[in-house]
Amino acid sequence: MTVASTTGSGTAPLQRFAVLGAGSWGTTFGKVLADAGRDVTIWARRDRLARSIDADHVNPDYLPGVHLPATLHASADLDAVLDGVDAVALAVPSQSLRENLVLFREVLPPGVPVVSLAKGVEIGTDLRMSELIGSVGRVAASRIVVLTGPNLAKEIAADHPTASVLACTDHDRAVAVQAACATPYFRPYTITDVVGAEIAGTGKNIVAVACGLADGLGLGLNTVASLITRGLAELTRLGVALGASAETFAGLAGLGDLVATCSSPLSRNRTLGARLAAGEELDAALAAMGGQVAEGVVSCRSVRDLAHRHGIDMPITEAVFRVCYRHLPPPGMIRFLMDRPHSRE
Amino acid sequence: MTVASTTGSGTAPLQRFAVLGAGSWGTTFGKVLADAGRDVTIWARRDRLARSIDADHVNPDYLPGVHLPATLHASADLDAVLDGVDAVALAVPSQSLRENLVLFREVLPPGVPVVSLAKGVEIGTDLRMSELIGSVGRVAASRIVVLTGPNLAKEIAADHPTASVLACTDHDRAVAVQAACATPYFRPYTITDVVGAEIAGTGKNIVAVACGLADGLGLGLNTVASLITRGLAELTRLGVALGASAETFAGLAGLGDLVATCSSPLSRNRTLGARLAAGEELDAALAAMGGQVAEGVVSCRSVRDLAHRHGIDMPITEAVFRVCYRHLPPPGMIRFLMDRPHSRE
Repeated sequence: MTVASTTGSGTAPLQRFAVLGAGSWGTTFGKVLADAGRDVTIWARRDRLARSIDADHVNPDYLPGVHLPATLHASADLDAVLDGVDAVALAVPSQSLRENLVLFREVLPPGVPVVSLAKGVEIGTDLRMSELIGSVGRVAASRIVVLTGPNLAKEIAADHPTASVLACTDHDRAVAVQAACATPYFRPYTITDVVGAEIAGTGKNIVAVACGLADGLGLGLNTVASLITRGLAELTRLGVALGASAETFAGLAGLGDLVATCSSPLSRNRTLGARLAAGEELDAALAAMGGQVAEGVVSCRSVRDLAHRHGIDMPITEAVFRVCYRHLPPPGMIRFLMDRPHSRE
Repeated sequence: MTVASTTGSGTAPLQRFAVLGAGSWGTTFGKVLADAGRDVTIWARRDRLARSIDADHVNPDYLPGVHLPATLHASADLDAVLDGVDAVALAVPSQSLRENLVLFREVLPPGVPVVSLAKGVEIGTDLRMSELIGSVGRVAASRIVVLTGPNLAKEIAADHPTASVLACTDHDRAVAVQAACATPYFRPYTITDVVGAEIAGTGKNIVAVACGLADGLGLGLNTVASLITRGLAELTRLGVALGASAETFAGLAGLGDLVATCSSPLSRNRTLGARLAAGEELDAALAAMGGQVAEGVVSCRSVRDLAHRHGIDMPITEAVFRVCYRHLPPPGMIRFLMDRPHSRE
């Protein structure tokens, strides 16, 4: 324990976890850890929510209807939650991660593994979440473990069998977290390609918006399947240019997550795309969704910036960007994609 | 025209097409060709169906509700249909292709391109469709063009934008067919990897059965996405061992077709999987589906044979085979896949 708690690696198991953030994914991952036999405390900003999880074993705001393990604790006291833990999971939204890291970094135990649950790229800086955790949170890259894969939170919370991916430049660290969170229904694999894991996890939301646009235009599964295929191809091109491995994109972190996200009829990104296709302006569509963030709308800007900087052709990202920010009519997106020159695939 | 009609290549366009088979895919591809401006005649075995397509512009048996172009003709007279054509498309079911080829080879015009629309591997011989067309139909490999991709027939028949793939060892031949069948809604790409196109087109049905099993067990999109990802990975391993390119599997013929097939809730393979998961025996499930063929049930035997012969690990194919033919209870399939050793991806 002492070795693990100071280096986060070695042979002693990671036993005590803090999960910072009580949204649906943070709560679900806390449940996974508790089911795996770990001692877990979730930090919730609001005391009422913390008490509901801790005493009533339910998160009515973000995971209604799911009975949480009695061994899963929660508190609104950040210092108490982090006291003596072996590992920390960050489960706050990507666009508020920076301000939270400024808070967390003062009290994060030194040397522990930090599991990143957020997906996306920060607006303005184009930083990936692990880059943000490193620079703002002052966490060494070898301690940052990115959790990704085809992981719809509500299905994992219902104990549906799910494969997942833990990416860390230090493979031993990923293996330590893998050993800590594996359950009969949650099966994590390890990779060392953090860049690929994060680019795939960010870009999938753009493709989901494109699939929603196709839905809203009344198009079918052939079109959606083509968008998924060509979307994955353009994300792979970008990832490889950034130093990632193409294999990551062919695996659970890439293809797997993309298919799960694009298949989910209730996903925010797909819903947003359908609203845009129906003729709503971006602001109106976002407002109609109750202010929920559709990450694809944010990510298409950052990913397009990265693509331009590295000279990568990303027609689907470009089309989604133009629909969102350049008033390209949605049917024009399909023409934009279909009218490109006939060619070898 | 004369150059094209004898070599199937060169600069003269392919204008006159015969489509042999009046099922949903043959009729749909005939419509695509007619919409592309070609002169097309469909051969239907039954005169009544031929007259319905030719005179009433509808195929009530296999494509009800779709208005066919007046320029799309049909006949039950095979000799008349093939007289003077520049190209032929074969649209009969895979397991009756051999007996049809024995009939067709006596009257096929020499030298014309032959477009293969059937997917699968022949039971007993493990021959791919292009191998069967070559050996039984006496067609040179360089004349055989395999049409594949994310192509649900009913969506194409409804003019939904669709990307497709034409695979031929002779790239010029694929380009000639591409030029002949492209329309504003049907966008074919060309590749030279026939083996990859056919293995992907066969194997996708096995993965669709696995997804149906997951459906029937009440599992969710995380599981389905993992099955699609790992299914594509094992098909890629087999294809590469047989000389195919991994890129084919990452493209529209592989990933694209797999996603379209596995996403379609009405697909025969997925329906069959769900019935098996509900506890029906294979024969009873097939009988309950009115004798319709679920290709995945056939293909899992042939693909498993190929995998054994080439020493390729294909756990999803093996699991589907065991459920179909070795009385493995469907929940056991999931355990079989989830209980494998924790590992790097």
